[in-house]
Amino acid sequence: MKRTRIAEVLTSENLKAKISVMGWVRTRRDSKGGFSFIEINDGSVLSNLQLIADNSLPNYRDEVLELQTGCSIRATGTLSASQGKGQNVELKVEEIQVLGWADPSVYPLQKKRHSFEFLRTIAHLRPRTNTFGAVARVRNAMSLAIHTFFQERGFLYIHTPIITGSDCEGAGEMFQVTTLDLDDVPKKDGQVDFEKDFFGRPTNLTVSGQLTAEIYALSMGDVYTFGPTFRAEDSNTSRHLAEFWMIEPEMAFCDLEGNIALAVESLKYIFAYVLKNCEEDMKFFNRFIDPSIIETLEGVVSEDFECLTYTEGIKILSQAKKKFEFPVEWGTDLQSEHERYLCEEVFKRPVVLTDYPKKIKPFYMKVNKDGKTVRAMDVLVPKTGEIIGGSQREDDHDTLLESIKGMGLNPDDYWWYLELRKFGSAPHAGFGLGFERLIQFVTGMSNIRDVIPFPRTPGSVSF
Amino acid sequence: MKRTRIAEVLTSENLKAKISVMGWVRTRRDSKGGFSFIEINDGSVLSNLQLIADNSLPNYRDEVLELQTGCSIRATGTLSASQGKGQNVELKVEEIQVLGWADPSVYPLQKKRHSFEFLRTIAHLRPRTNTFGAVARVRNAMSLAIHTFFQERGFLYIHTPIITGSDCEGAGEMFQVTTLDLDDVPKKDGQVDFEKDFFGRPTNLTVSGQLTAEIYALSMGDVYTFGPTFRAEDSNTSRHLAEFWMIEPEMAFCDLEGNIALAVESLKYIFAYVLKNCEEDMKFFNRFIDPSIIETLEGVVSEDFECLTYTEGIKILSQAKKKFEFPVEWGTDLQSEHERYLCEEVFKRPVVLTDYPKKIKPFYMKVNKDGKTVRAMDVLVPKTGEIIGGSQREDDHDTLLESIKGMGLNPDDYWWYLELRKFGSAPHAGFGLGFERLIQFVTGMSNIRDVIPFPRTPGSVSF
Repeated sequence: MKRTRIAEVLTSENLKAKISVMGWVRTRRDSKGGFSFIEINDGSVLSNLQLIADNSLPNYRDEVLELQTGCSIRATGTLSASQGKGQNVELKVEEIQVLGWADPSVYPLQKKRHSFEFLRTIAHLRPRTNTFGAVARVRNAMSLAIHTFFQERGFLYIHTPIITGSDCEGAGEMFQVTTLDLDDVPKKDGQVDFEKDFFGRPTNLTVSGQLTAEIYALSMGDVYTFGPTFRAEDSNTSRHLAEFWMIEPEMAFCDLEGNIALAVESLKYIFAYVLKNCEEDMKFFNRFIDPSIIETLEGVVSEDFECLTYTEGIKILSQAKKKFEFPVEWGTDLQSEHERYLCEEVFKRPVVLTDYPKKIKPFYMKVNKDGKTVRAMDVLVPKTGEIIGGSQREDDHDTLLESIKGMGLNPDDYWWYLELRKFGSAPHAGFGLGFERLIQFVTGMSNIRDVIPFPRTPGSVSF
Repeated sequence: MKRTRIAEVLTSENLKAKISVMGWVRTRRDSKGGFSFIEINDGSVLSNLQLIADNSLPNYRDEVLELQTGCSIRATGTLSASQGKGQNVELKVEEIQVLGWADPSVYPLQKKRHSFEFLRTIAHLRPRTNTFGAVARVRNAMSLAIHTFFQERGFLYIHTPIITGSDCEGAGEMFQVTTLDLDDVPKKDGQVDFEKDFFGRPTNLTVSGQLTAEIYALSMGDVYTFGPTFRAEDSNTSRHLAEFWMIEPEMAFCDLEGNIALAVESLKYIFAYVLKNCEEDMKFFNRFIDPSIIETLEGVVSEDFECLTYTEGIKILSQAKKKFEFPVEWGTDLQSEHERYLCEEVFKRPVVLTDYPKKIKPFYMKVNKDGKTVRAMDVLVPKTGEIIGGSQREDDHDTLLESIKGMGLNPDDYWWYLELRKFGSAPHAGFGLGFERLIQFVTGMSNIRDVIPFPRTPGSVSF
C-alpha cells in the first residue's frame, strides 16, 4: 500500500507526479460546478492536503458526497499548483477509495473547537485534532533532540530499572508493585508475607534512575537515562502526573560547574532544535496557545543564564518590594513565585541557583566546606520556575555515610551506593529534567495532562 | 575538569598533544628501570590506554606504586607512539592524581576471570569489566540504531502508558500496582475496595504498548514505541525477564506485506549498524562469547529472508526426519526447536512465517477469508527462534467484536479500541521486538540477565 506522506507532498517540487495519499477527512465542501474540495490530514504535518474530486468519479455521488469529518480515505491523483488561497498544491483526484466511515451522528470530533477537558475523555481520538497532533510531533522531535544531544557528546543511553527493591531513592511516595492476592494477602506473624510475593520482598515503581545511573557513570563515564518515573502523590494540579518521563544525565569526573554547563547547553540545544524542525507546529502554538512562546524560547537559546548562589538569591528576594505569598528566609525552599520573580523580574532571563542549604536537599548531594550547604543547582526559567534540578554527588564515603545516617536512613539499604565511594570513587554530577514540564514550556500547553498521550493522575487511568 | 576520552585518544592523530585522561586502573606493572606501566579504562572504549609513569613524579613512591585495579585516577601528559606491543599510542605521564582508591583486600573485581553468575551479585561493579562494558556500549548503539531507523523513515516516537487500568492487553500475567496498605487492605462488601486505591480501580503494569500505539497510528500514520514492559511469569530461564524493553512499530495504511518488509529492513539495519559502529566490541564477543556471531549477523544482513505460511511450515516440519521433543500438528504453536530447524537446517537463513491458526493467536489479529487463520507473522532467526511477532490488525468493527466475544473477553473493556474501527478505520499493522533478546542475538550472551543493567526475575530485584 504505497502512500506518500502529506508532509512530503506539501514540499514536493515534482508537481506532475501521480501519487496516492491516505488520511482522515477534516472537511468537505461541495461546489455547484459538480466537484468537491476535501481536506485530508495524515498526521505527518499540521497542514491538510486539499483534494479536488469531481463528479466524473464513479463513486462521486454515492461515496464522495457522503464523506464526513473523520472518514479515512485513499486518494490517487496528480499534484498541481493550487489556485485557491491557503495552500500551494492540491491533488486532482482520479480515484478515491473510502477505507473507513465515521458516522457524523456519533463521531465525537466534529469540526468545531472542543475543550481540552472534553478531549481528555476521548484520548483515543484527540491526536486527530490540530493541537494534539502538533503536541505529538513536537514531543517526538524533543525526544529525538535529547538522544541526539547526548549521543553527539559521547554519552551512553542506560536503561535503569523501573521496579525497585527498596524505597531508598528518597523522593516522595511510591507505588507498590505486587503479585500478592489483594483479596487475601498472605500473612506471617501478623505481617505481610512478602516471601510469597513475586520478588520475595516489597517492591515499588522507581521515582528516579539517578542512583543506578551513578553506577554506570562510575564505570562508563558519561551516561543518561530517558525513561518513565512514578510518584504516588495525591496532587491534582496542572503540573503533576503520577507517571512521567524523565531525562537524567550523570557524568563521572565532573563537578558542579560542568554540570551547569551541560544543563544550559542541553536546554538551548533542545529549544533550538524544535524551533528549527517544528516551525509550523510552533507557529500554531504561538498563535493559538501562547503568543509569547517562540520569543521566550528564542530568548533562552540566545541569552546567557544568570548564575548565583541560593544565599545570594535569598538576599535579593528578601529585599524585594514584591509581596510574596510564602515568606522568604534562608533555609526554606523556594516557591514557584520566588523562582519566577528572579527570572522574570530581576534578571529577565533563565537563572541557575546553586549551593542550597543541606537540610532541604537529598542525602546524596556533595557537602560544601561550610558544612551547611550542598553543591546543588536548580535551573529556573520564566513562567515555569524550576525546570532542572541537579547536583554534584557526594563522592566521599564517610561524609556520605554520615549524611545517610543524619537523615535517619538505614545505611544497609545503600550498601552498593556506598561501595561506589569505596572502590575508585570519583567526582561526579548529574541532573534530572522532567520531560512533560519541558514540553509544557516549549508548547505553552497549560495542563500537563495534555502533553502526554495518556495521562495518569489520582483517580484517572483511562486508556 | 577537562578530560579527553580514551576512545578519542586511541584514534588521535595529534601525537604531541598534552592531555588529561581520567579512568579506572586495570593493571599496573613496574619496571626495574624505575617506571611503571599503568593501563586505565574509562568505559568509552574496550581498549585500555597505557600510561608510563616514572619515578621523577613527586608521588611515584607514595601513590603510583600503590595503585591497584579499580583505583580512579587523573593523568596528564603527552601522547606518543608506543614502542610496546598491543597499542599504537601511550601517555607519558607528567602528573598523576589519585581520585579514589580501591583496597585490593576488599575490592571484588580483581584481575582474573569472574563468572557471570558472580558478577550478577555485584551489578554495581560489573560494567567495569570488559564484557559488561561492551554490552553497555552495544546496547546503547542498538538503541540509537532503532531510533535512527524509525526517525529516518518518518515514524513518530510515542510514549505509551506503563500503568494500565485494565488487563485487556491479553498477554500473560501482570503485576498489580497499588497504594493500598497491604497490611490492612480496605474491603467493601467482602471485596477489595479499589475506590480507595490511587486510581480508584485495579491497575497493572503494561505487557505491551500495542493497543494504545494503534490509537496513534490511526491518527499520526507511522509510530513506534520503545519502552519497558512487564510479565509476572514465574519463568526462571535464560530468556525471560519480568521487566524488559520492547520496540513496537505500528503503521496505518499498511498490510501484512508492508509489515514484513519493515521487520526485515529494521533487523538488517540494526545489525549492519552494530557491525559498523561497534567493531571492536563485536570482535570481543566473537572471540570470547560466540565465535560465529559476526558471521551470523553478516549473513542476516546480506541474505533474503525466506517467507512462507505457517501451514507450509507445518508441512515441512511434519515431513522432517528429525525427531522433535514436541510433536508438530496443524493448530499447535511452534516450539523453539521447530523454529530453529526451519532456519538452521531447512532454509539456512532467517524465516518469516505467516498466517497462523486463529485460535493460537490474540484477538486483535486480522482474520483471513478462510476464517481459520489470521494475518500474523513471526520472524525467526538462527539460534534464537522467534525474534519478532506481529500482525495486520483486525480493522473491521464487527469481526473484531466477534473475536473479542469469541475469546470470552468483555467488549466493554475494549470500547475505545472498538471505536477506532468505527471512526475512520484503516488497514494497519505492526510488530513487537523484544530488545533484550535482540541484544542476546547480537552479542551471543547466553543469559538475558547479562544484557540488561539490572535484571528483574522471580525472587530477584537487587540494585
